[in-house]
Amino acid sequence: MGRILIHDAVIVPVVEESYIERGYLIIDGSRILEVGEGEYALGKDGFDKVIDAKGKLAMPGLVNTHGHAAMALLRGYADDLPLQAWLEEKCWPIEDKMVPEDVYWGSQLAILEMLKGGTTTFTDMYYFMDGVAEAVRDSGIRAVLSRGMVGFSPQKAKETKEGGIEFVTKWHKQADGRITAMFGPHAPYTCPNDFLREVVEVSKEHDLPLQIHLSETAFEVNQCKEQNNGLSPIQLMEELGIFSRPTIAAHCVHVSDEDIAIMKKYDVRVAHNPDSNLKLGSGIAPAVKMLEAGLTLGLGTDGAASNNNLDMFEEMRMAAMLHKGRDQDAIAVTAYKALEMATKDGAKALFLEDKLGTLQPGALADVILLDTNQPHFYPRHNWIAHLAYSAGARDVTDVIVNGQLVVEDRKVLTMDEEKIYAEVDRVCARLFA
Amino acid sequence: MGRILIHDAVIVPVVEESYIERGYLIIDGSRILEVGEGEYALGKDGFDKVIDAKGKLAMPGLVNTHGHAAMALLRGYADDLPLQAWLEEKCWPIEDKMVPEDVYWGSQLAILEMLKGGTTTFTDMYYFMDGVAEAVRDSGIRAVLSRGMVGFSPQKAKETKEGGIEFVTKWHKQADGRITAMFGPHAPYTCPNDFLREVVEVSKEHDLPLQIHLSETAFEVNQCKEQNNGLSPIQLMEELGIFSRPTIAAHCVHVSDEDIAIMKKYDVRVAHNPDSNLKLGSGIAPAVKMLEAGLTLGLGTDGAASNNNLDMFEEMRMAAMLHKGRDQDAIAVTAYKALEMATKDGAKALFLEDKLGTLQPGALADVILLDTNQPHFYPRHNWIAHLAYSAGARDVTDVIVNGQLVVEDRKVLTMDEEKIYAEVDRVCARLFA
Repeated sequence: MGRILIHDAVIVPVVEESYIERGYLIIDGSRILEVGEGEYALGKDGFDKVIDAKGKLAMPGLVNTHGHAAMALLRGYADDLPLQAWLEEKCWPIEDKMVPEDVYWGSQLAILEMLKGGTTTFTDMYYFMDGVAEAVRDSGIRAVLSRGMVGFSPQKAKETKEGGIEFVTKWHKQADGRITAMFGPHAPYTCPNDFLREVVEVSKEHDLPLQIHLSETAFEVNQCKEQNNGLSPIQLMEELGIFSRPTIAAHCVHVSDEDIAIMKKYDVRVAHNPDSNLKLGSGIAPAVKMLEAGLTLGLGTDGAASNNNLDMFEEMRMAAMLHKGRDQDAIAVTAYKALEMATKDGAKALFLEDKLGTLQPGALADVILLDTNQPHFYPRHNWIAHLAYSAGARDVTDVIVNGQLVVEDRKVLTMDEEKIYAEVDRVCARLFA
Repeated sequence: MGRILIHDAVIVPVVEESYIERGYLIIDGSRILEVGEGEYALGKDGFDKVIDAKGKLAMPGLVNTHGHAAMALLRGYADDLPLQAWLEEKCWPIEDKMVPEDVYWGSQLAILEMLKGGTTTFTDMYYFMDGVAEAVRDSGIRAVLSRGMVGFSPQKAKETKEGGIEFVTKWHKQADGRITAMFGPHAPYTCPNDFLREVVEVSKEHDLPLQIHLSETAFEVNQCKEQNNGLSPIQLMEELGIFSRPTIAAHCVHVSDEDIAIMKKYDVRVAHNPDSNLKLGSGIAPAVKMLEAGLTLGLGTDGAASNNNLDMFEEMRMAAMLHKGRDQDAIAVTAYKALEMATKDGAKALFLEDKLGTLQPGALADVILLDTNQPHFYPRHNWIAHLAYSAGARDVTDVIVNGQLVVEDRKVLTMDEEKIYAEVDRVCARLFA
């Protein structure tokens, strides 16, 4: 921590739809102090680090609003299967064999990929969450974390509720404030109604938001209606009081106009995961309708088992392109809206608004640099279009999180890449034996 | 040219759905001589080049079956617009100002991006095509090229027909056989019926296939029906005799079951461009129906003005994911089918089958290597899934085309990257003044 100067960069602050062709950025501690245009002329002494960013572009770090980091261990293990079979026949049997160190190394692998690809904040709901939190603490990334709560049995409900409380108590605001805890009831189809009511109470007591999977598949919606007098998952959540709490709902693929109106009424935030929803055959979320209704949408990769990478540039690109094609409307989601969704709207979706997701004085210093000296960034007509439509994770060269330089010239300073690969191979040899 | 040994690579030959965990590959002249499993034990003398590919994966070079390379000059210039406005209000006015050297430098930029990203064959239909062919000759890439033929006026019809004949006469089989020429009538909406009949005759005389844009938008299909007694573009092409010639049809987004049956009858090959079709709001092609009907589909990026990059891994990924989501069917297009579409099926779509798109003895030596020592390639569950779902253009380290090493450790040996950027900036300063 200290004072960092980044100079001679293209700067895309994502404050409004514009950018600076040549500018500088000063970081002081964990926050951005100044963003300026032109040459930095005041002398470069008094900085702990000076980064000459000629040929680079600076933008806010990407915010991944939904995922399960440790599922990186299952990347490529189960593809081309529908969600229920994928989950029940492939993922769960492996997850049953997982022990805490698996979750730690799986999370390290995912965080390594995310940091190298410019993601500075990720969201997680899983189990053995101490392992995820430790990986966040050790790596320097920022995260919003929840112990996944499920109520398959009264015993499981009790265990995961207590585990959820224990987790938020232990980890909220830890790791220099980089960890934010939430409660994470998994989904209506894994949490009985009474259990969800309990979770609402717990969330109130601890004054923390909720994250939950909602209306991911048509199957889930139909099953919910059958079991709940015709109520959709969104309608059921309203009835159970979930939306009385600040909530981020992942997926929302199969939501009706009525559902969207309910979500708007409670300002439910949405984690839109276009790639995962495609890959599992879940469908295409009505993102344009949700945006038009005034909802806040962030983007998420979901776990690497259903994506299969954690490249937030691909989610941005997919969000910008998919709805154009589905709706046959070439302006459905603009390049700039997709960029906002991947940065400041994502921060807002995670209830971290006003602090994160832009480059402006006072914002948390999560900054990434991209190498623009590559063919897919020529000619220099429009940097916002280039970010939304041409860029990818491997363009990222440097990453700063919370004012700390964690990736420099494509090397992650805080992690041992070769050790992570070796440990991943080791734990996988046992899990997939 | 000479003998090249690549050893200690993961090898994905795309001959059948399997791969070699550790193997070697021998290239002799322009062709693959041998693909073997395990260590290469016969001594490494007698090779002009020995590539230690430990930590790398070898696969066939990617085949891009549709595009307009020089439109890279318009990348990011006109986004979030529907096809007709994009074409008529933004692209055409700039294209009217283009001179031959613009097309040369635009093509150089596109080829630079494609080679670095593992594309070893691309397809082009444009004008000032000598510039494209010269860029192909100079860069070492393989290409299938056509002078775009349009009949807006009798004068234009005559000029582009003669230009098309001149082009194939001059360039077919040139550049060590890397250039294949075709005739390229642009589309039914730019070519009157009588002109298309003339093109059929010319194609017969020169014994070369045709490439044409067909049924890209609903607007185009409706207009065609209005002007041709209810015939769809596919039906009209059948009636005009286009399909009596070997034809690759780009897009085919709005094709009916009846259209598909006609295409099958004539074995019309398809260039599926999922990203471009999404971005321009054209729609989502019924790729699964076309595959089920037994049609051959290759993948294409289209021009960078409607994509906006030329990353064929993204097209592969999109082809594998998009139809799963649209059809809510998680096995709609498998990872391996997408990989075939990006390689050997693409070669077949371009009438280059049996020579290109696989790694097997006798095949043309178009080989790419990827750096697998990256987080998105761990764990090592399934290389085919990793290629279809996790990989990207920037993973490519080395590229061999026609037995010649053209990219080594991410450096393009045959092109001057900095000069290309400078020339692109120079010509754009004039074009976009």
